[in-house]
This record gives sequence, structure tokens and C-alpha cells, in this order.
Amino acid sequence: MKYSKQVEQWDIFEIELQFSNLGGNPFRDIWLQATFKIGDEFKRVNGFYDGGTTWRIRFMPETTGNYRFQIHSNVDRFNGLEGHFTSTMPSEGNHGPVQVNGVHFNYADGTPFFVMGTTAYAWTYRPEEVRLRTLESFAKYGFNKIRMLVFPKYYRGLLMDVNVDYDPPVFPFAGKPNEFDFQTLVPEYFRNFEERVMDLMRLGIEADVILFHPYDTWGIDSGMRQADDLFYVNYLISRLAAYRNVWWSLANEYDISSTPEGMFCSRTDRKDWDLIGTTIKSNDPHGHPISVHNLPMRHIYPDRDWLSHVSIQHPDTYTLLSELKHHYKKPIVNDEYQYEGNIKDEWGNSDGATTLFRHWLSAMAGCYASHGEVFKVDGNETDLFWSYGGTLIGDSAPRLKFMKEILESCAYQDMNRDWANTDGHHYFALNRGIDEYLFFCRYDLPGKGFWFGSYDGSRPEYDVIVYDAWNCIEKDRLTVKEIEANHLLPIKAWTVYRLKRKKMQM
Amino acid sequence: MKYSKQVEQWDIFEIELQFSNLGGNPFRDIWLQATFKIGDEFKRVNGFYDGGTTWRIRFMPETTGNYRFQIHSNVDRFNGLEGHFTSTMPSEGNHGPVQVNGVHFNYADGTPFFVMGTTAYAWTYRPEEVRLRTLESFAKYGFNKIRMLVFPKYYRGLLMDVNVDYDPPVFPFAGKPNEFDFQTLVPEYFRNFEERVMDLMRLGIEADVILFHPYDTWGIDSGMRQADDLFYVNYLISRLAAYRNVWWSLANEYDISSTPEGMFCSRTDRKDWDLIGTTIKSNDPHGHPISVHNLPMRHIYPDRDWLSHVSIQHPDTYTLLSELKHHYKKPIVNDEYQYEGNIKDEWGNSDGATTLFRHWLSAMAGCYASHGEVFKVDGNETDLFWSYGGTLIGDSAPRLKFMKEILESCAYQDMNRDWANTDGHHYFALNRGIDEYLFFCRYDLPGKGFWFGSYDGSRPEYDVIVYDAWNCIEKDRLTVKEIEANHLLPIKAWTVYRLKRKKMQM
Repeated sequence: MKYSKQVEQWDIFEIELQFSNLGGNPFRDIWLQATFKIGDEFKRVNGFYDGGTTWRIRFMPETTGNYRFQIHSNVDRFNGLEGHFTSTMPSEGNHGPVQVNGVHFNYADGTPFFVMGTTAYAWTYRPEEVRLRTLESFAKYGFNKIRMLVFPKYYRGLLMDVNVDYDPPVFPFAGKPNEFDFQTLVPEYFRNFEERVMDLMRLGIEADVILFHPYDTWGIDSGMRQADDLFYVNYLISRLAAYRNVWWSLANEYDISSTPEGMFCSRTDRKDWDLIGTTIKSNDPHGHPISVHNLPMRHIYPDRDWLSHVSIQHPDTYTLLSELKHHYKKPIVNDEYQYEGNIKDEWGNSDGATTLFRHWLSAMAGCYASHGEVFKVDGNETDLFWSYGGTLIGDSAPRLKFMKEILESCAYQDMNRDWANTDGHHYFALNRGIDEYLFFCRYDLPGKGFWFGSYDGSRPEYDVIVYDAWNCIEKDRLTVKEIEANHLLPIKAWTVYRLKRKKMQM
Repeated sequence: MKYSKQVEQWDIFEIELQFSNLGGNPFRDIWLQATFKIGDEFKRVNGFYDGGTTWRIRFMPETTGNYRFQIHSNVDRFNGLEGHFTSTMPSEGNHGPVQVNGVHFNYADGTPFFVMGTTAYAWTYRPEEVRLRTLESFAKYGFNKIRMLVFPKYYRGLLMDVNVDYDPPVFPFAGKPNEFDFQTLVPEYFRNFEERVMDLMRLGIEADVILFHPYDTWGIDSGMRQADDLFYVNYLISRLAAYRNVWWSLANEYDISSTPEGMFCSRTDRKDWDLIGTTIKSNDPHGHPISVHNLPMRHIYPDRDWLSHVSIQHPDTYTLLSELKHHYKKPIVNDEYQYEGNIKDEWGNSDGATTLFRHWLSAMAGCYASHGEVFKVDGNETDLFWSYGGTLIGDSAPRLKFMKEILESCAYQDMNRDWANTDGHHYFALNRGIDEYLFFCRYDLPGKGFWFGSYDGSRPEYDVIVYDAWNCIEKDRLTVKEIEANHLLPIKAWTVYRLKRKKMQM
């Protein structure tokens, strides 16, 4: 038994165990579990087989102090092993896992987490040179949540305009395509995946880990039966749950299905999503966020106890998000609002302005969103960021970084949709009572203005910063007063006004 | 006692009574009430003093057949009078009063009523030549609900860019401006007003009668105390409730108020709105629709038992209306979304495209709206349609007529917001299950399309009419099929698609 005597809070504590007397299927036939205790608190964590003669148990200490653990197993030499370690103060930049806080997200240390997602479904098994550029692009533009698949992706699009067909270096299961043994996993595949999760953790980026998806030519999605699905999900939990930056997404497009004749249809029962979701909620000792992502045409997943937040695919980032926020009373993330790009398919041909606007709207609805980019360069229909990563080249990424900086300068979680200053088309607003406003304009609308203040005769004053959301500059600083100020804040395309009420002079 | 022995259903049955022995205040000191009976049903209706020696009782028979009535009064010669009359089948074009039907409106005979409102606050006391042109404009463009004030209007706008200051030929109350006796009414004033309501009834147009408003230089709104308000409201009910085309709007901008120092403020207690609303609901024997209209900056009236539908002022005609519809579960009418016009004030300077778009959006939210027009011609800051009527000259009126015709060709009341085909900005949709769709596009959005059908492999077919909502023409008729049809219905500015599912061939 090997383990470190000291680990910082929210880092990975790992126990390594060796056992060479193998027989049968070590993934299925051997189980081991550790109970971790601190004070009166305890958690049970499953270990996993990591190939060769190695088993591991991973755990994320959620507080500082002295932990004790004891192992239970059907292997005699594991059963009853004990130990202890110290969890120390987290180092700078380690804020712990992201958790749901009402309709928003916080890190475990209480720091607000403003989701600025992007998408790179299959970046994890590309060559290192590509992966390094990918990580550089994530970091350069401040993306802090990456939607990424566990399983490999194969996809041509409805119009055969993209070609995503690389085989991964190894497959996740033993056997060969269309003849996999789904209860014999290939640890190397998962080891690579978790190294990519660690790459992101080092950059302070959340990994939105997508467990199942339909875009598959290897017989994985269609071949796995319910028992296989749960076996795999539990294996993944035991490997990954101790990574503080993990989020679970049950599926990309959970509601794609096919008729008995093999025709496309939209149904919700391709897999037993409720069983999978409940399994994760029961077995993830660290309670990472759980969501499930849909096709835009019909079924947004209904509210469930296991669903921590709502992840949707839809081009509407405002009205629909407002409705969903009201309905679910959980955080709403529009994780796919049609990507910026130049392909023929509508999911990947938005221009930069539409992309930026839609993303801004998600914030003006008090919600969140994820970006994506699908640019074919010189006709290359394969190396598209949305799947394989690489280098972001679109118009929206740098502007989303600027947007995030503005939102993070506001008390965003305490702000609500300011319906009085929103026409829902040309201009939009958030407010925090009458103390703070954020106004966003998409178009010029001559002769109209914003209304703010108390309307009780006291006529409060505001400090205003004026931003140009397209050119990413601060344009001006003003002081304005209620009512007369109306025409001082004209509705001009891409103008953003951040108002904070001046302190009353005593 | 004079009355007609025969009246058609939903027309006005009137009893005229004479009594010359006056003393004191005949409005206040004399009361009379009739009980109307048919079968087991009965209703009580208050009469009113109409000047000189004349009293009247008005009643709208809500069914056909033989009615009997008996009068009760504190005047001996009225008390105990009886009579009967026959209510006959309504003539063509008489569909009865408009009533709330869930989140929509129907005439009493079940015909759906699609609200297409406009505004002419003070048209009723302008010279006949102007009034006739006003009526012609209402009818020409198919406006079927007119927002109109009972009391005269005085208004200069925040920017002194309009000048609405005509005195009416007579005032509604005895005395003189700022010294009115609010319990001595001037029947001539009200007689003129009800003749205008009758002008509208003859054209099949609803009169949205606004009882109170703040834009007053004669000391009416500010001078009336609670007892005066109720006295006046009851008088108006007794005069007008038998007109089938009456709607009651408690106020234009109920939440304008002023501080003790006389500064503008936004408060909800300028008058006792709940008491006024409850008085109307209690005393209107015919249950006309009741609403109350707000300033856009803060207070939409909360739900009340007396509130039959929601009338708001706000530039948002989509997201906010969707939210209100969900919240109130009553019909939502955006009665003022900023008028088409060329004045400086933002409430009256929208261009035709913004006006038309906002009105279309109200329908795409499954709600309703009212138009208005404020064009200064040759610098004339007084004769503006929105107040005084005249001739409509804007870009939106003819296009709203076309819009209404399209909506009336759909099963509008059975359609809901089709979120799957709505991005909330470029394109919008309603659907009735998978049997009927209405798609509305505001802008070009190249490479995107609509999704419709069953997605179960059966691939239903649709008959499509393609309209140009700006040029008011039917452009094309098509047949399209699920999925592949996606790109047959491109998102093009001002294009409207109406889809009806083809009957299955047996």
C-alpha cells in the first residue's frame, strides 16, 4: 500500500495497491472500498483496477485536518488495511470543486464561478502538439468549462460537410470495434482521459465530462446494455470523482434515437438516464454537478433530484433561458446555442456577432452558456476546434473574454433580469435593486433610453462605466442622475453600461 | 315609462322615465333599480339621471326570449313599475360582448376575438369632421379595440414636444376647472361619450374605456376623493354597461404619483384601485372585461379577482409577455409598446418596422397588443392621432391589418409558443401540436431553418403558405416534408410561413 501522508484540501489523495494473483475479470470480480473519516464525518469511496497488478483508491479531502481510512475488499490482502494522512490548506488558485448555489455556481471556498464554457468533444486523444495548442486557446480566452466526451467521436453532419473520424490510439474497451467486451476496460484509455482532466485542473478549468453520446461508428453507444452502462459509469466515478474540476454530463443529445427500421427519431429512452443519473448521485462521494444535454427540437430533460443544473442545446439564449430558470430554479447553462463557424450545418455556421450576442443574452437572462467554434480552414473538414481542439480563430472568443471580465466586475449572482429596462430585442438589463445596473445594447435605437433609480423624489446618482462590447474597450466614465439621465445613456449598438449607485454623503 | 317591446340579443334595452319634482341633487338623492328576469335568471341594474326630468335604465339582454322587469326606487312614482319585452335573435355582425376565454378572448357567441388595438385617447370630443375621419381610419385598418379616455386630456410630454390642450365643449362635472362639484355630473358630456361608443359598436369595434388618468390641467384627477371616484364609476356603469362593446380600463398609468413636495414619483396608491375594480366587478351586470394600465418602469398590477385580463405598457412584447401569460394565466394585452411616430419622447418615436415587429412579437408570444400613432405633420404638435384621432398615415397600420388576417386564418387560440423553432431574436414560432405551425422571421439568418413534424419516422407532409409580412403579399404555396424540408423554409427577413399538416391518405 502506497500513499502520500500529506495532500492539500481538494487535491487528489491516492492509495496504490498491488495484487498479482489475478483470475477471471479483475474489473468485475474484485471490489475494494475505503472509508475515510475526519471527526464525525465519513465517506465511502470505491477503488478501481488500473491494469497490471495495480489497484487504486482516490479521494478528495473536502476539509483540512487529519483523515483516517480503512479498506474493505473481497481480496484478503486489501481487506482491513488502514492508514491516515493530513489534509493541508489549499494553495493559491485551488478554490475547490464547483457547486451549485441556488441558480448560480460557487467554488467550494465560496468564490463565485461565472461559467464561460467552450467545446472540444474529442480533444483528449489528439497528438500532444494539438492538445497543447488547445489548452493554450482555452486559457488565452478565459474559457473555464470544457464540454468533452469520454468516448471517441465519429460524425459527418447531416450535410456531410465535416469529417470527424479519427480512431483513438486505443479504445476504452477490450476487443475490437463492434465486438467490444464492455466489462473489460482498457485502463490506458481512461488514464489518458484523466491526464487531460488534470491538464485542465492545472489551468483552473472545469471538465464537463460527457459520459454517452450517439456519434459513434465503433458500436459503443449502441452496443452497451444497461449493466454495461452502469459498470462503466461506476468505473469512471472511481477514477475521476477525486478530481475537483469534474462535472458529469450524462449525454450529448440524450434524445437522439432511431426507429426499429433505423430511421432517425426523437425519443428519450435510448438509455436509462434516470438510472444513470441516480447511480452517479448515489456513488459520487464528492457531489460533482450533474446534467444532461438535449437536441434542440423537443425534449429538455425534466427536473430530477439527481439533476444539479440544466444543460441545454438551443439557439434561444434569452426567453427560453428565463423560462427555464423560473421553472427549474436551478442554474441554466445553454451549452450549445449553435457554434461560430463556416460549415453548412446550422449548428456550426453562426457569425461572430450572432455568437457574441447570443452569449451576452444568456448572461442578461441571469444564466450561462458555452461557446464553440467550427471553422473549416482551406477546406479541411476534419481539424475543427469543436471536436479536436487546436487554435481558436473566431471573432467571438476574445470578445467573450471581455464580456466575462465585465460580468465578473458585477455582483452577478445578486442581479436579476431588470424587465423595466429591457425591450427584449434592442436592449437588455440586469439590476440589483436600485444599487447596481448592467445595460446591454445590441442595436442603435434612436430616441430611447434607460430608466433607473428610486422614482421616489430622492434622485440617486450613479457612477457609470461605458464599454464597447464589440471592440472590447472601456469608452467612458460618467456620473448620471435619475430621470434626467435618461438620454445620457442612449441605446447604441454593442454599448454596455455598468452603473453603481454612489454612496450617500452623510 | 317608455321602452321598446322588442330588442335584439346583446343590444341596448332602455327604459325612459320622467319625474319633474326635483329637489336637492338628483344624481345623489334619487336611486332607481330594475330587476330583469328570464326563466330562473335575474339581474339587477341601476338607472341614472340623464338631466332635465329624465331618468333611464339600460340593460343588455344576454339571451333570447321574454324578459320581465320590475323597478324599485325611492321615488314613489317609479317604485313598483313593471313591464316586459322580447329579446330576439341577434342580427348579422352582432356577436355579443367580448369575454375572457382562458388566455384569449371570445365574443359571447363563441367567435374568437383577436385583439388589434389602437389608441385615440381624446378623440371623442373633437369636431365631427375629425371624428368621422378617425372612425374611417379605425375601420380601414381593422382596428377592433380603441383605448379612449372618459375625462379630457392635457399633456405636453416630458420634452414639451407635443401640445394636447383642447378644452372639451363641456366638462363632465358641474362648476368650473379646479372647482368642480364631482357629485353633480353633466349628462351632456357623458351623452357625447356614449354616442362615440355607439359609433364604434356600429363598426364592430370595442371601446376600451379608461376611467382615470393623470394628464389633467382641470383638477379632475387630483380633485376627486374616494367617494367621488366611486360615484362617478357607478354612474358610468349605469350609462354604459348595456353597450356590448365596452371594456373597462381603470387607468392610463395608474402608478404615476407625486411626492408631498410635488415631485414625480412612482407609487401605486394614487387612487384606491382595488376598491374601484371591485366596485365595477360588483356593479357591472354584464361582466365586461376589466384591466388597469401601468407606467413601464416598475409596477405591473398584481393579479386580482376583479382583473379579467392584463393590460400593460412596455416596449417588450415578447419575453415579458410570455412571462406574464405564465404568471397570470389570463389574457395579456400590451396596450402601449411605444407608438409609431416622430416626436422626441421615446413613447412616440418608433419607426414603422419596430412597431410592426413588436406587434408581431406579441402574437408570437400568444398574446395581444395595441398600436398607436404620433406623427407631427408640418410641425403641428397638437393634432396627433394617439390623442385626437384624425387620419392614420404611418407604415404600421396597413401591415397590422395584414398580420391580423394571417393570425385569424390560424387556430390562434389553440396554438402555443413553439420554443423549438424560436431563437427569440431572428425567428419565432407558434404551433398546435404537430398539426399547425406559424413561423415568423424578422431578419435573414443564412444557413438556418425550421424543424417541424413528428420525429418518429412517419415524416408528415405540410401545406405551406409563404407571406411577406412587410409588403403584405402572399408569396408562394409549397408542400414540405419533415426533416429534409428544413432548408426549404429559410429564415428570411419579414417572411411568415403558415403550415398546416396534410390530411393522412387512408
